[in-house]
Amino acid sequence: MFYLIGLGLGDAKDITVRGLEIVKRCDKVLLESYTSILTVGKEGLEEFYGRQLILADRELCESSIDEILREAKTSEIALLVVGDPLGATTHTDMLLRAKDFGVETQIVHNASIMNAVSCCGLQLYNYGETVSIPYWTDTWKPDSFFEKIIGNYSRNLHTLCLLDIKVKEPTEESLCKKVRQYMDPKFMSVKEAASQLLQIIENKPDAGLSKSSLAVGLSRVGSPEQRIAVKTLEDMQSFDLGAPLHSLVIPAPNIHPLEMDYLAQFR
Amino acid sequence: MFYLIGLGLGDAKDITVRGLEIVKRCDKVLLESYTSILTVGKEGLEEFYGRQLILADRELCESSIDEILREAKTSEIALLVVGDPLGATTHTDMLLRAKDFGVETQIVHNASIMNAVSCCGLQLYNYGETVSIPYWTDTWKPDSFFEKIIGNYSRNLHTLCLLDIKVKEPTEESLCKKVRQYMDPKFMSVKEAASQLLQIIENKPDAGLSKSSLAVGLSRVGSPEQRIAVKTLEDMQSFDLGAPLHSLVIPAPNIHPLEMDYLAQFR
Repeated sequence: MFYLIGLGLGDAKDITVRGLEIVKRCDKVLLESYTSILTVGKEGLEEFYGRQLILADRELCESSIDEILREAKTSEIALLVVGDPLGATTHTDMLLRAKDFGVETQIVHNASIMNAVSCCGLQLYNYGETVSIPYWTDTWKPDSFFEKIIGNYSRNLHTLCLLDIKVKEPTEESLCKKVRQYMDPKFMSVKEAASQLLQIIENKPDAGLSKSSLAVGLSRVGSPEQRIAVKTLEDMQSFDLGAPLHSLVIPAPNIHPLEMDYLAQFR
Repeated sequence: MFYLIGLGLGDAKDITVRGLEIVKRCDKVLLESYTSILTVGKEGLEEFYGRQLILADRELCESSIDEILREAKTSEIALLVVGDPLGATTHTDMLLRAKDFGVETQIVHNASIMNAVSCCGLQLYNYGETVSIPYWTDTWKPDSFFEKIIGNYSRNLHTLCLLDIKVKEPTEESLCKKVRQYMDPKFMSVKEAASQLLQIIENKPDAGLSKSSLAVGLSRVGSPEQRIAVKTLEDMQSFDLGAPLHSLVIPAPNIHPLEMDYLAQFR
Protein backbone atom coordinates (compact mmCIF):
# COMPACT_ATOMS: atom_id res chain seq x y z
CA MET A 1 0.00 0.00 0.00
CA PHE A 2 1.22 3.46 -0.93
CA TYR A 3 -0.16 6.35 1.15
CA LEU A 4 -0.08 10.02 0.23
CA ILE A 5 -0.60 11.93 3.47
CA GLY A 6 -1.24 15.66 3.74
CA LEU A 7 0.45 17.41 6.68
CA GLY A 8 -1.59 20.61 6.60
CA LEU A 9 0.07 23.98 6.93
CA GLY A 10 1.34 24.73 10.42
CA ASP A 11 3.49 22.31 12.39
CA ALA A 12 3.63 18.64 13.39
CA LYS A 13 0.21 18.67 15.08
CA ASP A 14 -1.62 19.63 11.90
CA ILE A 15 -1.57 16.06 10.61
CA THR A 16 -4.95 14.30 10.98
CA VAL A 17 -5.49 11.51 13.49
CA ARG A 18 -5.97 9.11 10.55
CA GLY A 19 -2.71 10.32 8.99
CA LEU A 20 -0.79 9.95 12.25
CA GLU A 21 -1.99 6.36 12.74
CA ILE A 22 -0.75 5.46 9.26
CA VAL A 23 2.61 7.18 9.82
CA LYS A 24 3.11 5.20 13.02
CA ARG A 25 2.40 1.81 11.45
CA CYS A 26 4.09 2.17 8.03
CA ASP A 27 7.26 0.24 7.14
CA LYS A 28 8.82 3.33 5.58
CA VAL A 29 7.87 7.01 5.67
CA LEU A 30 9.21 9.59 3.22
CA LEU A 31 8.93 13.36 3.66
CA GLU A 32 8.51 15.30 0.41
CA SER A 33 10.85 18.27 0.75
CA TYR A 34 10.64 20.47 -2.32
CA THR A 35 7.11 21.72 -3.04
CA SER A 36 6.41 23.37 0.33
CA ILE A 37 7.56 23.62 3.97
CA LEU A 38 6.03 23.62 7.45
CA THR A 39 7.17 25.89 10.29
CA VAL A 40 8.86 22.78 11.72
CA GLY A 41 11.58 20.70 10.02
CA LYS A 42 12.29 16.98 9.60
CA GLU A 43 13.67 16.62 13.14
CA GLY A 44 10.56 18.21 14.67
CA LEU A 45 8.31 15.82 12.78
CA GLU A 46 10.47 12.80 13.68
CA GLU A 47 10.28 13.69 17.34
CA PHE A 48 6.49 14.07 17.21
CA TYR A 49 5.94 10.84 15.25
CA GLY A 50 8.55 8.91 17.25
CA ARG A 51 10.11 7.51 14.08
CA GLN A 52 12.66 8.28 11.39
CA LEU A 53 11.75 9.94 8.09
CA ILE A 54 13.52 9.77 4.75
CA LEU A 55 13.85 13.13 2.95
CA ALA A 56 12.39 12.88 -0.55
CA ASP A 57 13.74 15.59 -2.84
CA ARG A 58 12.70 16.21 -6.45
CA GLU A 59 15.25 13.72 -7.78
CA LEU A 60 13.93 10.94 -5.58
CA CYS A 61 10.26 11.75 -6.28
CA GLU A 62 10.75 11.92 -10.02
CA SER A 63 13.51 9.38 -10.77
CA SER A 64 13.32 6.78 -8.01
CA ILE A 65 9.55 6.67 -7.55
CA ASP A 66 9.20 3.38 -9.49
CA GLU A 67 11.53 1.66 -7.06
CA ILE A 68 9.54 2.96 -4.09
CA LEU A 69 6.24 1.90 -5.65
CA ARG A 70 7.59 -1.61 -6.32
CA GLU A 71 8.50 -1.80 -2.65
CA ALA A 72 4.95 -0.70 -1.76
CA LYS A 73 3.57 -3.85 -3.40
CA THR A 74 4.61 -5.88 -0.39
CA SER A 75 5.00 -3.25 2.33
CA GLU A 76 3.32 -0.10 3.64
CA ILE A 77 5.00 3.11 2.47
CA ALA A 78 3.82 6.66 3.10
CA LEU A 79 4.87 9.89 1.42
CA LEU A 80 4.17 12.95 3.57
CA VAL A 81 3.33 16.14 1.71
CA VAL A 82 2.90 19.63 3.19
CA GLY A 83 -0.66 20.91 2.65
CA ASP A 84 -2.91 18.56 0.70
CA PRO A 85 -1.16 15.74 -1.17
CA LEU A 86 -2.88 16.42 -4.50
CA GLY A 87 -1.93 20.09 -4.77
CA ALA A 88 1.00 19.32 -7.09
CA THR A 89 0.81 17.48 -10.44
CA THR A 90 3.74 15.25 -9.48
CA HIS A 91 1.67 13.43 -6.85
CA THR A 92 -1.25 12.76 -9.21
CA ASP A 93 1.33 11.27 -11.56
CA MET A 94 2.61 9.00 -8.76
CA LEU A 95 -0.91 7.62 -8.22
CA LEU A 96 -1.21 6.78 -11.92
CA ARG A 97 2.13 4.97 -11.85
CA ALA A 98 1.05 3.07 -8.75
CA LYS A 99 -2.06 1.92 -10.61
CA ASP A 100 0.12 0.69 -13.50
CA PHE A 101 2.20 -1.28 -10.99
CA GLY A 102 -0.90 -2.74 -9.36
CA VAL A 103 -0.12 -1.01 -6.06
CA GLU A 104 -3.05 0.04 -3.90
CA THR A 105 -3.07 3.71 -2.87
CA GLN A 106 -4.79 5.82 -0.25
CA ILE A 107 -4.95 9.59 0.09
CA VAL A 108 -5.25 11.41 3.40
CA HIS A 109 -6.39 14.95 2.65
CA ASN A 110 -5.58 18.03 4.69
CA ALA A 111 -5.79 21.80 4.55
CA SER A 112 -3.80 23.52 1.83
CA ILE A 113 -3.28 27.15 0.91
CA MET A 114 -6.00 26.59 -1.75
CA ASN A 115 -8.67 26.57 0.96
CA ALA A 116 -6.90 28.05 4.03
CA VAL A 117 -6.39 31.34 2.15
CA SER A 118 -9.97 32.02 3.29
CA CYS A 119 -8.35 33.18 6.57
CA CYS A 120 -7.99 36.68 5.06
CA GLY A 121 -11.78 36.96 4.82
CA LEU A 122 -12.13 36.90 1.02
CA GLN A 123 -14.66 34.14 0.30
CA LEU A 124 -13.37 31.08 -1.59
CA TYR A 125 -16.28 31.08 -4.05
CA ASN A 126 -15.23 34.57 -5.18
CA TYR A 127 -11.81 33.37 -6.38
CA GLY A 128 -11.01 32.73 -10.03
CA GLU A 129 -8.20 30.50 -11.20
CA THR A 130 -5.05 30.29 -9.08
CA VAL A 131 -1.75 31.43 -10.56
CA SER A 132 1.91 30.74 -9.80
CA ILE A 133 4.45 33.56 -9.86
CA PRO A 134 7.91 32.27 -10.80
CA TYR A 135 11.24 33.85 -9.86
CA TRP A 136 12.55 35.99 -12.68
CA THR A 137 16.15 35.85 -13.84
CA ASP A 138 18.11 38.44 -15.85
CA THR A 139 17.17 36.68 -19.07
CA TRP A 140 13.85 34.97 -18.25
CA LYS A 141 10.90 37.10 -17.16
CA PRO A 142 7.70 35.15 -17.94
CA ASP A 143 4.48 37.06 -17.24
CA SER A 144 1.65 34.80 -18.45
CA PHE A 145 0.27 34.71 -14.89
CA PHE A 146 -0.55 38.42 -15.23
CA GLU A 147 -3.14 37.78 -17.96
CA LYS A 148 -4.84 35.26 -15.69
CA ILE A 149 -4.93 37.75 -12.80
CA ILE A 150 -6.47 40.33 -15.15
CA GLY A 151 -8.92 37.70 -16.45
CA ASN A 152 -10.13 37.12 -12.88
CA TYR A 153 -10.06 40.82 -11.98
CA SER A 154 -12.19 41.78 -15.00
CA ARG A 155 -14.81 39.22 -13.88
CA ASN A 156 -14.68 40.65 -10.34
CA LEU A 157 -12.89 37.59 -8.92
CA HIS A 158 -9.98 37.39 -6.48
CA THR A 159 -6.71 35.71 -7.48
CA LEU A 160 -4.58 33.56 -5.21
CA CYS A 161 -0.94 33.84 -6.31
CA LEU A 162 1.30 30.96 -5.23
CA LEU A 163 4.88 32.17 -4.92
CA ASP A 164 7.91 30.35 -6.26
CA ILE A 165 10.01 27.97 -4.15
CA LYS A 166 13.50 26.86 -5.10
CA VAL A 167 14.75 23.95 -3.05
CA LYS A 168 17.76 21.87 -4.04
CA GLU A 169 17.93 23.45 -7.48
CA PRO A 170 21.19 22.64 -9.30
CA THR A 171 23.36 25.69 -10.12
CA GLU A 172 23.54 26.52 -13.84
CA GLU A 173 27.31 25.95 -13.84
CA SER A 174 26.98 22.43 -12.44
CA LEU A 175 24.25 21.25 -14.85
CA CYS A 176 26.80 19.70 -17.25
CA LYS A 177 29.17 18.48 -14.55
CA LYS A 178 29.27 15.04 -13.00
CA VAL A 179 28.87 16.34 -9.48
CA ARG A 180 25.84 18.61 -9.12
CA GLN A 181 26.07 21.68 -6.92
CA TYR A 182 22.92 23.16 -5.43
CA MET A 183 21.72 26.70 -4.80
CA ASP A 184 20.65 27.74 -1.31
CA PRO A 185 16.90 27.21 -0.90
CA LYS A 186 14.84 30.33 -1.53
CA PHE A 187 11.18 31.20 -1.08
CA MET A 188 9.61 34.13 -2.88
CA SER A 189 8.34 36.81 -0.51
CA VAL A 190 5.21 38.90 -0.95
CA LYS A 191 7.61 41.84 -1.37
CA GLU A 192 9.36 40.22 -4.33
CA ALA A 193 6.06 39.13 -5.92
CA ALA A 194 4.63 42.65 -5.63
CA SER A 195 7.78 44.08 -7.16
CA GLN A 196 7.60 41.72 -10.18
CA LEU A 197 3.90 42.53 -10.62
CA LEU A 198 4.61 46.27 -10.55
CA GLN A 199 7.22 45.87 -13.29
CA ILE A 200 4.61 44.19 -15.50
CA ILE A 201 2.00 46.84 -14.66
CA GLU A 202 4.45 49.56 -15.71
CA ASN A 203 4.55 48.03 -19.20
CA LYS A 204 0.81 47.34 -19.31
CA PRO A 205 -0.75 50.42 -17.72
CA ASP A 206 -4.19 49.86 -19.27
CA ALA A 207 -4.74 46.29 -18.11
CA GLY A 208 -6.81 47.32 -15.07
CA LEU A 209 -4.35 47.03 -12.16
CA SER A 210 -2.18 49.90 -10.92
CA LYS A 211 0.36 50.50 -8.19
CA SER A 212 -2.47 51.71 -5.95
CA SER A 213 -4.48 48.47 -6.41
CA LEU A 214 -5.10 46.53 -3.23
CA ALA A 215 -3.13 43.40 -2.40
CA VAL A 216 -3.32 40.94 0.50
CA GLY A 217 -0.07 39.44 1.72
CA LEU A 218 -0.14 36.27 3.82
CA SER A 219 2.66 34.42 5.57
CA ARG A 220 2.81 31.11 7.44
CA VAL A 221 -0.94 30.56 7.00
CA GLY A 222 -2.35 28.04 9.45
CA SER A 223 0.49 28.37 11.97
CA PRO A 224 0.38 30.38 15.21
CA GLU A 225 2.79 32.86 13.54
CA GLN A 226 0.39 33.53 10.66
CA ARG A 227 0.45 37.14 9.44
CA ILE A 228 -1.83 38.97 7.03
CA ALA A 229 -1.34 42.47 5.60
CA VAL A 230 -3.61 44.52 3.34
CA LYS A 231 -1.80 47.26 1.40
CA THR A 232 -1.48 48.81 -2.04
CA LEU A 233 0.80 46.88 -4.38
CA GLU A 234 3.26 49.76 -4.14
CA ASP A 235 3.42 49.61 -0.34
CA MET A 236 3.53 45.80 -0.38
CA GLN A 237 6.75 46.05 -2.38
CA SER A 238 8.60 47.28 0.70
CA PHE A 239 6.70 45.41 3.42
CA ASP A 240 8.34 42.54 5.27
CA LEU A 241 6.02 39.65 6.26
CA GLY A 242 8.79 37.63 7.93
CA ALA A 243 9.80 34.01 7.43
CA PRO A 244 8.34 31.88 4.57
CA LEU A 245 6.01 30.62 3.17
CA HIS A 246 4.31 33.65 1.66
CA SER A 247 1.26 33.95 -0.60
CA LEU A 248 -0.29 36.94 -2.30
CA VAL A 249 -3.93 37.65 -3.12
CA ILE A 250 -5.08 40.22 -5.67
CA PRO A 251 -8.66 41.03 -4.63
CA ALA A 252 -11.48 41.71 -7.11
CA PRO A 253 -12.15 45.41 -7.81
CA ASN A 254 -15.54 45.33 -6.06
CA ILE A 255 -15.25 43.63 -2.72
CA HIS A 256 -18.35 42.50 -0.81
CA PRO A 257 -18.98 44.59 2.37
CA LEU A 258 -18.53 41.57 4.67
CA GLU A 259 -15.22 40.78 2.99
CA MET A 260 -14.19 44.44 3.32
CA ASP A 261 -15.05 44.47 7.04
CA TYR A 262 -12.88 41.41 7.54
CA LEU A 263 -9.95 42.78 5.51
CA ALA A 264 -10.11 46.05 7.48
CA GLN A 265 -8.51 44.42 10.53
CA PHE A 266 -5.31 43.75 8.53
CA ARG A 267 -4.78 47.28 7.13
CA MET B 1 -11.30 31.73 23.56
CA PHE B 2 -13.52 30.78 20.64
CA TYR B 3 -12.19 28.02 18.36
CA LEU B 4 -13.43 27.21 14.87
CA ILE B 5 -12.24 23.68 14.15
CA GLY B 6 -12.43 21.97 10.76
CA LEU B 7 -13.31 18.27 10.85
CA GLY B 8 -12.23 17.41 7.32
CA LEU B 9 -14.40 15.27 5.08
CA GLY B 10 -14.48 11.60 6.07
CA ASP B 11 -15.18 10.44 9.63
CA ALA B 12 -14.11 11.15 13.21
CA LYS B 13 -10.42 10.44 12.57
CA ASP B 14 -10.10 13.22 9.97
CA ILE B 15 -9.77 15.88 12.66
CA THR B 16 -6.19 17.10 13.12
CA VAL B 17 -4.17 16.26 16.22
CA ARG B 18 -4.23 19.98 17.13
CA GLY B 19 -8.01 20.04 16.69
CA LEU B 20 -8.52 16.94 18.81
CA GLU B 21 -6.42 18.35 21.67
CA ILE B 22 -8.57 21.48 21.71
CA VAL B 23 -11.84 19.48 21.60
CA LYS B 24 -10.71 17.44 24.60
CA ARG B 25 -9.82 20.45 26.75
CA CYS B 26 -12.65 22.87 25.87
CA ASP B 27 -15.39 23.76 28.34
CA LYS B 28 -18.08 23.42 25.70
CA VAL B 29 -18.03 21.96 22.17
CA LEU B 30 -20.69 22.67 19.55
CA LEU B 31 -21.15 20.71 16.33
CA GLU B 32 -22.37 22.77 13.38
CA SER B 33 -25.04 20.67 11.74
CA TYR B 34 -26.45 22.43 8.69
CA THR B 35 -23.78 23.32 6.11
CA SER B 36 -22.33 19.81 5.59
CA ILE B 37 -22.13 16.29 7.04
CA LEU B 38 -19.53 13.60 7.69
CA THR B 39 -20.07 9.88 7.09
CA VAL B 40 -20.40 9.62 10.89
CA GLY B 41 -22.99 11.36 13.06
CA LYS B 42 -22.93 13.19 16.40
CA GLU B 43 -22.82 9.95 18.41
CA GLY B 44 -19.85 8.63 16.46
CA LEU B 45 -17.93 11.83 17.10
CA GLU B 46 -18.88 11.86 20.80
CA GLU B 47 -17.60 8.34 21.21
CA PHE B 48 -14.30 9.16 19.49
CA TYR B 49 -13.76 12.40 21.44
CA GLY B 50 -14.97 10.91 24.73
CA ARG B 51 -17.20 13.90 25.40
CA GLN B 52 -20.63 15.33 24.71
CA LEU B 53 -21.36 17.67 21.83
CA ILE B 54 -24.10 20.27 21.44
CA LEU B 55 -25.81 20.29 18.04
CA ALA B 56 -25.68 23.78 16.54
CA ASP B 57 -28.32 24.29 13.86
CA ARG B 58 -28.80 27.39 11.72
CA GLU B 59 -31.00 29.08 14.34
CA LEU B 60 -28.38 28.65 17.03
CA CYS B 61 -25.49 29.75 14.79
CA GLU B 62 -27.31 32.82 13.54
CA SER B 63 -29.48 33.96 16.46
CA SER B 64 -27.74 32.73 19.60
CA ILE B 65 -24.15 33.23 18.54
CA ASP B 66 -23.75 36.44 20.61
CA GLU B 67 -24.61 34.54 23.77
CA ILE B 68 -22.05 31.84 22.95
CA LEU B 69 -19.38 34.41 22.16
CA ARG B 70 -20.02 36.21 25.46
CA GLU B 71 -19.50 32.90 27.22
CA ALA B 72 -16.24 32.46 25.30
CA LYS B 73 -14.83 35.57 27.00
CA THR B 74 -14.24 33.59 30.16
CA SER B 75 -14.25 29.98 28.95
CA GLU B 76 -13.00 27.86 26.07
CA ILE B 77 -15.65 27.10 23.45
CA ALA B 78 -15.17 25.28 20.16
CA LEU B 79 -17.46 25.11 17.15
CA LEU B 80 -16.78 22.05 14.97
CA VAL B 81 -17.40 22.49 11.27
CA VAL B 82 -17.29 19.77 8.58
CA GLY B 83 -14.53 20.49 6.04
CA ASP B 84 -12.64 23.73 6.61
CA PRO B 85 -14.26 26.18 9.05
CA LEU B 86 -14.02 29.18 6.70
CA GLY B 87 -15.83 27.61 3.74
CA ALA B 88 -19.13 29.29 4.67
CA THR B 89 -19.72 33.03 5.06
CA THR B 90 -21.52 32.51 8.36
CA HIS B 91 -18.30 31.49 10.12
CA THR B 92 -16.34 34.49 8.86
CA ASP B 93 -19.16 36.60 10.25
CA MET B 94 -18.80 34.87 13.63
CA LEU B 95 -15.12 35.80 13.77
CA LEU B 96 -15.96 39.45 13.14
CA ARG B 97 -18.53 39.40 15.92
CA ALA B 98 -16.03 37.78 18.25
CA LYS B 99 -13.60 40.61 17.51
CA ASP B 100 -16.32 43.17 18.38
CA PHE B 101 -16.88 41.39 21.69
CA GLY B 102 -13.13 41.30 22.41
CA VAL B 103 -13.08 37.50 22.31
CA GLU B 104 -9.90 35.83 21.11
CA THR B 105 -10.36 33.35 18.25
CA GLN B 106 -8.35 30.54 16.72
CA ILE B 107 -8.96 28.65 13.48
CA VAL B 108 -7.93 25.04 12.93
CA HIS B 109 -7.96 24.41 9.18
CA ASN B 110 -8.70 21.10 7.50
CA ALA B 111 -9.42 19.63 4.10
CA SER B 112 -12.60 20.78 2.37
CA ILE B 113 -14.22 19.88 -0.92
CA MET B 114 -12.57 23.06 -2.30
CA ASN B 115 -9.18 21.34 -2.30
CA ALA B 116 -10.04 17.62 -1.93
CA VAL B 117 -11.93 17.72 -5.25
CA SER B 118 -8.43 17.23 -6.70
CA CYS B 119 -9.01 13.50 -6.02
CA CYS B 120 -10.66 13.21 -9.45
CA GLY B 121 -7.39 14.16 -11.13
CA LEU B 122 -8.39 17.58 -12.48
CA GLN B 123 -5.72 19.99 -11.24
CA LEU B 124 -6.85 22.66 -8.78
CA TYR B 125 -5.10 25.48 -10.65
CA ASN B 126 -7.25 24.70 -13.69
CA TYR B 127 -10.50 25.49 -11.84
CA GLY B 128 -12.37 28.75 -12.26
CA GLU B 129 -14.82 30.10 -9.73
CA THR B 130 -16.86 27.63 -7.69
CA VAL B 131 -20.65 27.66 -8.03
CA SER B 132 -23.55 26.46 -5.88
CA ILE B 133 -26.52 24.70 -7.45
CA PRO B 134 -29.70 25.29 -5.43
CA TYR B 135 -32.75 23.03 -5.31
CA TRP B 136 -35.43 24.24 -7.66
CA THR B 137 -39.06 24.48 -6.65
CA ASP B 138 -42.11 24.67 -8.90
CA THR B 139 -42.00 28.45 -8.80
CA TRP B 140 -38.32 29.25 -8.23
CA LYS B 141 -35.73 28.04 -10.74
CA PRO B 142 -32.67 30.31 -10.45
CA ASP B 143 -29.94 29.60 -13.02
CA SER B 144 -27.28 32.28 -12.47
CA PHE B 145 -24.76 29.52 -11.66
CA PHE B 146 -24.99 28.41 -15.30
CA GLU B 147 -23.46 31.64 -16.60
CA LYS B 148 -20.54 31.17 -14.22
CA ILE B 149 -20.01 27.59 -15.44
CA ILE B 150 -20.03 28.87 -19.04
CA GLY B 151 -17.65 31.70 -18.06
CA ASN B 152 -15.17 29.12 -16.75
CA TYR B 153 -15.77 26.72 -19.64
CA SER B 154 -15.13 29.40 -22.25
CA ARG B 155 -11.78 30.16 -20.57
CA ASN B 156 -10.96 26.43 -20.54
CA LEU B 157 -11.38 26.11 -16.78
CA HIS B 158 -13.10 23.40 -14.74
CA THR B 159 -16.04 24.26 -12.45
CA LEU B 160 -16.69 22.74 -9.06
CA CYS B 161 -20.44 22.72 -8.38
CA LEU B 162 -21.43 22.53 -4.72
CA LEU B 163 -24.84 20.90 -4.40
CA ASP B 164 -27.64 22.17 -2.19
CA ILE B 165 -28.25 20.90 1.33
CA LYS B 166 -31.50 21.40 3.22
CA VAL B 167 -31.20 20.61 6.89
CA LYS B 168 -33.81 21.73 9.41
CA GLU B 169 -35.53 23.98 6.88
CA PRO B 170 -38.93 25.20 8.12
CA THR B 171 -41.85 24.10 5.96
CA GLU B 172 -43.53 26.94 4.02
CA GLU B 173 -46.80 26.35 5.84
CA SER B 174 -45.21 26.75 9.26
CA LEU B 175 -43.30 29.96 8.50
CA CYS B 176 -46.07 32.15 9.91
CA LYS B 177 -46.99 29.81 12.75
CA LYS B 178 -45.77 29.93 16.30
CA VAL B 179 -44.48 26.36 16.24
CA ARG B 180 -42.15 25.74 13.33
CA GLN B 181 -42.30 22.44 11.49
CA TYR B 182 -39.27 21.19 9.63
CA MET B 183 -38.77 19.36 6.34
CA ASP B 184 -36.83 16.12 6.26
CA PRO B 185 -33.16 16.83 5.54
CA LYS B 186 -32.26 16.49 1.88
CA PHE B 187 -28.97 16.56 0.00
CA MET B 188 -28.86 17.21 -3.75
CA SER B 189 -27.49 14.26 -5.70
CA VAL B 190 -25.28 14.44 -8.78
CA LYS B 191 -28.28 12.98 -10.63
CA GLU B 192 -30.54 15.87 -9.62
CA ALA B 193 -27.87 18.47 -10.38
CA ALA B 194 -27.27 17.02 -13.86
CA SER B 195 -31.00 17.00 -14.51
CA GLN B 196 -31.35 20.71 -13.55
CA LEU B 197 -28.33 21.59 -15.71
CA LEU B 198 -29.82 19.72 -18.69
CA GLN B 199 -33.06 21.69 -18.35
CA ILE B 200 -31.08 24.94 -18.58
CA ILE B 201 -29.04 23.67 -21.52
CA GLU B 202 -32.24 22.83 -23.38
CA ASN B 203 -33.22 26.49 -23.21
CA LYS B 204 -29.70 27.76 -23.97
CA PRO B 205 -28.43 25.39 -26.66
CA ASP B 206 -25.73 27.77 -27.94
CA ALA B 207 -24.00 28.44 -24.60
CA GLY B 208 -21.30 25.82 -25.19
CA LEU B 209 -22.43 22.85 -23.09
CA SER B 210 -24.61 20.03 -24.37
CA LYS B 211 -26.10 16.80 -23.07
CA SER B 212 -23.01 14.99 -24.37
CA SER B 213 -20.62 17.25 -22.42
CA LEU B 214 -18.47 15.48 -19.86
CA ALA B 215 -19.26 15.65 -16.14
CA VAL B 216 -17.49 14.25 -13.08
CA GLY B 217 -19.67 13.09 -10.21
CA LEU B 218 -18.14 12.67 -6.75
CA SER B 219 -19.64 11.31 -3.55
CA ARG B 220 -18.36 11.08 0.02
CA VAL B 221 -14.99 12.58 -0.97
CA GLY B 222 -12.25 11.87 1.54
CA SER B 223 -14.00 8.87 3.13
CA PRO B 224 -13.22 5.20 2.44
CA GLU B 225 -16.57 5.02 0.57
CA GLN B 226 -15.57 7.78 -1.83
CA ARG B 227 -16.87 7.27 -5.38
CA ILE B 228 -16.07 9.09 -8.61
CA ALA B 229 -17.83 8.69 -11.97
CA VAL B 230 -17.04 10.28 -15.33
CA LYS B 231 -20.00 10.36 -17.74
CA THR B 232 -21.86 12.61 -20.15
CA LEU B 233 -24.32 14.97 -18.47
CA GLU B 234 -27.13 12.93 -20.01
CA ASP B 235 -25.89 9.66 -18.52
CA MET B 236 -25.13 11.34 -15.19
CA GLN B 237 -28.80 12.22 -14.95
CA SER B 238 -29.67 8.58 -14.30
CA PHE B 239 -26.56 7.46 -12.44
CA ASP B 240 -26.73 6.74 -8.70
CA LEU B 241 -23.64 7.66 -6.69
CA GLY B 242 -25.09 6.46 -3.39
CA ALA B 243 -25.35 8.22 -0.04
CA PRO B 244 -24.56 11.98 0.33
CA LEU B 245 -22.66 14.29 0.10
CA HIS B 246 -22.35 14.66 -3.65
CA SER B 247 -20.43 17.19 -5.75
CA LEU B 248 -20.31 17.74 -9.49
CA VAL B 249 -17.46 18.99 -11.68
CA ILE B 250 -17.92 20.34 -15.20
CA PRO B 251 -14.50 19.92 -16.80
CA ALA B 252 -12.97 22.42 -19.24
CA PRO B 253 -13.46 21.56 -22.94
CA ASN B 254 -9.76 20.84 -23.47
CA ILE B 255 -8.44 18.62 -20.73
CA HIS B 256 -4.70 18.16 -20.19
CA PRO B 257 -3.48 14.64 -21.16
CA LEU B 258 -2.36 13.83 -17.59
CA GLU B 259 -5.79 14.88 -16.29
CA MET B 260 -7.44 12.77 -19.01
CA ASP B 261 -5.35 9.71 -18.07
CA TYR B 262 -6.44 10.11 -14.47
CA LEU B 263 -10.13 10.61 -15.31
CA ALA B 264 -10.04 7.51 -17.53
CA GLN B 265 -10.05 5.20 -14.50
CA PHE B 266 -13.50 6.49 -13.49
CA ARG B 267 -15.27 6.04 -16.86
